[in-house]
Amino acid sequence: MSEVKKAVLAYSGGLDTSVILKWLQDTYQCEVVTFTADLGQGEELEPARQKALQFGIKPENIFIDDLREEFVRDFVFPMFRCNTVYEGEYLLGTSIARPLIAKRLIEITNQTGAEAISHGATGKGNDQVRFELGAYALKPGIRIIAPWREWDLLSREKLLAYAEKHGIPVEMKHKQGGSPYSMDANLLHISYEGRHLENPAAEAEEDMWRWTVSPEKAPDAAEYLDLEFEKGDLVSINGKPMAAHDLLATLNQLGGKHGIGRLDLVENRYVGMKSRGCYETPGGTILLRAHRAIESITLDREVAHLKDDLMPRYASLIYNGYWWSPERRALQVLIDHTQQCVNGWVRLKLYKGNVIVVGRDSKTDSLFDPTIATFEDDAGAYDQKDAGGFIKLNALRMRIAANLAGRKK
Amino acid sequence: MSEVKKAVLAYSGGLDTSVILKWLQDTYQCEVVTFTADLGQGEELEPARQKALQFGIKPENIFIDDLREEFVRDFVFPMFRCNTVYEGEYLLGTSIARPLIAKRLIEITNQTGAEAISHGATGKGNDQVRFELGAYALKPGIRIIAPWREWDLLSREKLLAYAEKHGIPVEMKHKQGGSPYSMDANLLHISYEGRHLENPAAEAEEDMWRWTVSPEKAPDAAEYLDLEFEKGDLVSINGKPMAAHDLLATLNQLGGKHGIGRLDLVENRYVGMKSRGCYETPGGTILLRAHRAIESITLDREVAHLKDDLMPRYASLIYNGYWWSPERRALQVLIDHTQQCVNGWVRLKLYKGNVIVVGRDSKTDSLFDPTIATFEDDAGAYDQKDAGGFIKLNALRMRIAANLAGRKK
Amino acid sequence: MSEVKKAVLAYSGGLDTSVILKWLQDTYQCEVVTFTADLGQGEELEPARQKALQFGIKPENIFIDDLREEFVRDFVFPMFRCNTVYEGEYLLGTSIARPLIAKRLIEITNQTGAEAISHGATGKGNDQVRFELGAYALKPGIRIIAPWREWDLLSREKLLAYAEKHGIPVEMKHKQGGSPYSMDANLLHISYEGRHLENPAAEAEEDMWRWTVSPEKAPDAAEYLDLEFEKGDLVSINGKPMAAHDLLATLNQLGGKHGIGRLDLVENRYVGMKSRGCYETPGGTILLRAHRAIESITLDREVAHLKDDLMPRYASLIYNGYWWSPERRALQVLIDHTQQCVNGWVRLKLYKGNVIVVGRDSKTDSLFDPTIATFEDDAGAYDQKDAGGFIKLNALRMRIAANLAGRKK
Amino acid sequence: MSEVKKAVLAYSGGLDTSVILKWLQDTYQCEVVTFTADLGQGEELEPARQKALQFGIKPENIFIDDLREEFVRDFVFPMFRCNTVYEGEYLLGTSIARPLIAKRLIEITNQTGAEAISHGATGKGNDQVRFELGAYALKPGIRIIAPWREWDLLSREKLLAYAEKHGIPVEMKHKQGGSPYSMDANLLHISYEGRHLENPAAEAEEDMWRWTVSPEKAPDAAEYLDLEFEKGDLVSINGKPMAAHDLLATLNQLGGKHGIGRLDLVENRYVGMKSRGCYETPGGTILLRAHRAIESITLDREVAHLKDDLMPRYASLIYNGYWWSPERRALQVLIDHTQQCVNGWVRLKLYKGNVIVVGRDSKTDSLFDPTIATFEDDAGAYDQKDAGGFIKLNALRMRIAANLAGRKK
Repeated sequence: MSEVKKAVLAYSGGLDTSVILKWLQDTYQCEVVTFTADLGQGEELEPARQKALQFGIKPENIFIDDLREEFVRDFVFPMFRCNTVYEGEYLLGTSIARPLIAKRLIEITNQTGAEAISHGATGKGNDQVRFELGAYALKPGIRIIAPWREWDLLSREKLLAYAEKHGIPVEMKHKQGGSPYSMDANLLHISYEGRHLENPAAEAEEDMWRWTVSPEKAPDAAEYLDLEFEKGDLVSINGKPMAAHDLLATLNQLGGKHGIGRLDLVENRYVGMKSRGCYETPGGTILLRAHRAIESITLDREVAHLKDDLMPRYASLIYNGYWWSPERRALQVLIDHTQQCVNGWVRLKLYKGNVIVVGRDSKTDSLFDPTIATFEDDAGAYDQKDAGGFIKLNALRMRIAANLAGRKK
Repeated sequence: MSEVKKAVLAYSGGLDTSVILKWLQDTYQCEVVTFTADLGQGEELEPARQKALQFGIKPENIFIDDLREEFVRDFVFPMFRCNTVYEGEYLLGTSIARPLIAKRLIEITNQTGAEAISHGATGKGNDQVRFELGAYALKPGIRIIAPWREWDLLSREKLLAYAEKHGIPVEMKHKQGGSPYSMDANLLHISYEGRHLENPAAEAEEDMWRWTVSPEKAPDAAEYLDLEFEKGDLVSINGKPMAAHDLLATLNQLGGKHGIGRLDLVENRYVGMKSRGCYETPGGTILLRAHRAIESITLDREVAHLKDDLMPRYASLIYNGYWWSPERRALQVLIDHTQQCVNGWVRLKLYKGNVIVVGRDSKTDSLFDPTIATFEDDAGAYDQKDAGGFIKLNALRMRIAANLAGRKK
Repeated sequence: MSEVKKAVLAYSGGLDTSVILKWLQDTYQCEVVTFTADLGQGEELEPARQKALQFGIKPENIFIDDLREEFVRDFVFPMFRCNTVYEGEYLLGTSIARPLIAKRLIEITNQTGAEAISHGATGKGNDQVRFELGAYALKPGIRIIAPWREWDLLSREKLLAYAEKHGIPVEMKHKQGGSPYSMDANLLHISYEGRHLENPAAEAEEDMWRWTVSPEKAPDAAEYLDLEFEKGDLVSINGKPMAAHDLLATLNQLGGKHGIGRLDLVENRYVGMKSRGCYETPGGTILLRAHRAIESITLDREVAHLKDDLMPRYASLIYNGYWWSPERRALQVLIDHTQQCVNGWVRLKLYKGNVIVVGRDSKTDSLFDPTIATFEDDAGAYDQKDAGGFIKLNALRMRIAANLAGRKK
Repeated sequence: MSEVKKAVLAYSGGLDTSVILKWLQDTYQCEVVTFTADLGQGEELEPARQKALQFGIKPENIFIDDLREEFVRDFVFPMFRCNTVYEGEYLLGTSIARPLIAKRLIEITNQTGAEAISHGATGKGNDQVRFELGAYALKPGIRIIAPWREWDLLSREKLLAYAEKHGIPVEMKHKQGGSPYSMDANLLHISYEGRHLENPAAEAEEDMWRWTVSPEKAPDAAEYLDLEFEKGDLVSINGKPMAAHDLLATLNQLGGKHGIGRLDLVENRYVGMKSRGCYETPGGTILLRAHRAIESITLDREVAHLKDDLMPRYASLIYNGYWWSPERRALQVLIDHTQQCVNGWVRLKLYKGNVIVVGRDSKTDSLFDPTIATFEDDAGAYDQKDAGGFIKLNALRMRIAANLAGRKK
């Protein structure tokens, strides 16, 4: 295999990717380009720059990008247009960030003339698949270095020993047994895996959760919220238009305050195993509910059902890392087409973990026709006698079959 | 059309079906058989017998059946095996009761030698379809009399005038403007439609809800709950086995107490219009969550995804009244087959409207394998290097396409 | 119901629609506008004008349109982009013409200020549904007069008697027992139903078929054919570009000559019954085969599979009359999107009923990569070792389950 | 990795698997058990025994099994119950044999106490996946040796050199450039890949085809055929009941004689590449046509459509090697359930490549009701007026939408 002269590393500045940085330099003797993204994970990024410099990374090889708006506008919102949920529960917070990181890694590769990318995802998880399928789809000849599949530092102890040996600063928490959970955060969610969660029978510890208060600790007073949608996307909260990422940040703040969006589940990974994960998705939980509500009044029944039928497939594509695949793009074209009429507002009530839809309307696109649905006299808008023929013809095939069955007895 | 000598009426004892009873006697000059079912709606049924007798119904023509166990065991539980939800939200509480009523109507028709059945569902709703598709499927030559599609009593005022004229007792609430909502109840849920709800922008009134307290009024202390499943069906609560209908009643009591299971939505009726409904499904809401949780640890990934893909279709079949259709039965065979291994328990926490899964396990059928999923050294149970080949082959088609796209530029 | 002053009739000039024309004039006392379309059915249309004039139709109320190009370009070709087949066999020749007729009927209604449309489809068939769903979708307030559902001329004898009584000229063939089959023709196909075909066990008579010779009578020499596609649509035959309708006419001529495209089946009508139909679709049969072949080399696997999964639904929508529905349009957007890369040529061999694909290629969009697929040494283009990991991870969930099953024994 | 003492090899007796046999002995120093199956491929199996003995295989380690009846009864027929076709064309002749071979390999492994299985499938194809997924599903701890992924004999030249060096007899045809195609045969089909076929634009050579005459050389006289089905399976031909494998052999003979069942296509392999294959499936082509025909008259519309919707997924499962997966089994349960009423006969006409359905009927299960479908007066069996209501309610949602669109203009 050909030599690697320059590699772009998805670098968080944390212990794991710092070890990888050093390991890449030593193992491949290559120049390393670091890429650190602000996806709204709520951490300072400048320390990552300082650490990279300490490893001898050239200033022009340090990329720190604020991708929050692109993330929400081009990834999160399109996904929510499909009411996307994996396995009935998971809102895909980690999954949806990976294709954007893959895209930027490849862009930086092209810009810097690197031959390879590298990342800190393990060989057991979904993230390696998401990074790499994205990278291959965008740059088929890219070389990918996945240290967790190559090296022998397969436990936390070995990793710490390597860090110590190479003078990589280790925070106190790691030395004391390490951060108890494997976590990932971005504007859509924060996730927890590993350690105590590896027993799916055991309840998660209350102090694990970081973004939301518990429903018990949420305010005793409910809060009402008006969300406005245009073409299926949230555009304003309580009448105030904002950039996409500010909208989601606002929903996160509101949801977190009211104890909304915690989830504890066992999911099926693409690589074949079940794993237990806990998630906090406060804003996304609100958004999903509201989006379904605005669709309920603006979307044609059969279009809505078509979307519902396709949703699990679309969700699996994103979960499995196929965002950049032609089939995901084809589905997106259909989904986006259906959202042209999804305009209007939804009123929600937030209270101690509950997101309650209390009203919805659309000035321009409501298909709710009270003159037809009414229980009172509708002045002929709907002829009830039509229902007799409707039922009879829908029953015809079953009647013919029942007649046959009767004759057989 | 041939004469009707005897007709079986689905009779609740309420105003509407009492008017229908009288109208049938007058219009068709036929003997009426009344059928009143206890589906757990929480109303006394003996008054229905007394009223029927007052209309001159012969004692042997009055059928009052306790169908609660059959309802939950043979209809509700099979439906929950598929995690069935219509349009992402509705738990099908009304829909699932109709096929059982249709079945009993036909059985009584056969037993009494009647030629016709009659019901009080309007010509605008789904229930007429559900009753009649079921009846036609079970007895293809049945004659169906749907008064709301035949008569001219198309407003509440006209109905009251007819009742008054014919000496049908009218409760005070009806005279004072009538019950504000069209309601339906059984062990799975209670529903509300009409009146104030006809404006989908307006919040439902707090005093409409009957089965659940509001989350605000629910206890300040959470309550834990252990649910045990066998072959996908709930079999015990907190270690106590019960009959199916007692299990659901217990969940209803617990859910109602904790403010669980309220729903306010706009749905798409089979007859073509949108309608706004509010529902309370306390026990069903708990059951759905728990069933998904026990499946999460016992069901194969692809089987679970197959079920998720088929679920919206299965839900629409039930919503639209096709319980007795061959396609629903075919799907049920698949669904039931998948539940053989769905054995184990789920621990839930109920708190002010929230149903929180905190643990799940199965002694016999857990597919969760901690030796593989662990973030720590797994002693070779899983070879991380396998993931490289897995990803490369899954990426191959996209790489070939990207190569082609690159050459085209 | 309000008065009808002017009605647009889909008028073929044949006996049935001539009787309808007269019946409309008599029954509704309305002005009739006749609309006669050339869809390539291969009949002279001027006689329809003469007949209409004889019924007193004003010249400005007689519309005779050549819709062949619009039919093939905007209806047939878009449908073939999805490899559309109903119930595994039927190429939807009748179904796909109805939405265009519905569209023109409504356009003429708008242009002439008519309130109603009328057609000659019976109350048992699919065509009434297709005409009327289209009309309602395009003009929701349209009044539709379906004489076969209103009048009492429910047998051929009664129809002939009515014609005779009102001086409507009846061709000799009708007097002698009538045309043996109910037929429909357009550029895509000719269909036969009724009479001898009503016994599904009986073979169709050889002299029924009109467009194709029997395979037995087809030439003894095979004929090769090169078809070129752009964006999924046929654009040239043997290197000769033509208008869409000329392309299809040419394929019909070639297919008919070689005995291609006969079909004898029992299908399920939307109104609930099974019916036996025979079809000749010579050009369409060739086109379907060729389109699949060009897709086989240019379309991504998962996109192709997505299309295959959606096809039966898309086919049912067209069969059932939902061309103008929002769900058909949404699917079309997806389908059309996938066809951007479906460019290239296919070589076929036609011989006595057979359409044999013998070669296919694309200069610009072939995803066939011989350096990878080869059985010979590929110089590293594909690493066979990758397959080991691919298989192992795909097997993982089944291995875990088998381990569990082994422990249970 | 632990030592292999005994390995079971899927052994055809041909050059490739003979080289593998020797290579296993040399490389793993292990005892080899050979397994040779008669799946109806039409080759003598005793030579395989002789060759195995020459390699020093112990007589008790040589397994030669006639699996023809099991193959057709338990694999081919169940698959045909679903009208299974991969990518619109391929009848899965190779795919469906692999799970049976995997099953026998594991059975022999258990019987002989072997630790490993081995096969001659390459690392680029689907068969390795089918063998290995099956083996892992049936025996999760099985060790699999796939020589083509391990050794360096990656071209035919190297293979021949190895054979020569080790005294493995090489037939003349191999020395002269080898058999031009990679072939696989069993009772369902014979397949061709590689060599001249690697150019998808080039027509296959006429002398490649082995099982069928060309349509041109088929008899000038058509032949009629009556096929009888019970529960969806073929049970007799022209009134003569036969064992499953004799039925298929008879259809192969008839189809081959009449030039039926040749196929030339480009397919998408599970491992990610496109490949061109040619297939002869004479009996299967007849069977598929006939099965659809008997279903057309006995199967409910919605059940048939459900099967059509699921078919591509079921086909992909078999193509990709998931026969022994829980999701294939779940689908099979549904499919088999639907076939209870698929009883009756189909009449076919075979002529020069054509399989023409000319009649079909069922004494016990026909849902074709001529009194309803007739174009003549049906004496009230069907009330045409019902269609008006049917259409109006089906149109309602589109009318409401069109009204809204009209108001927006």
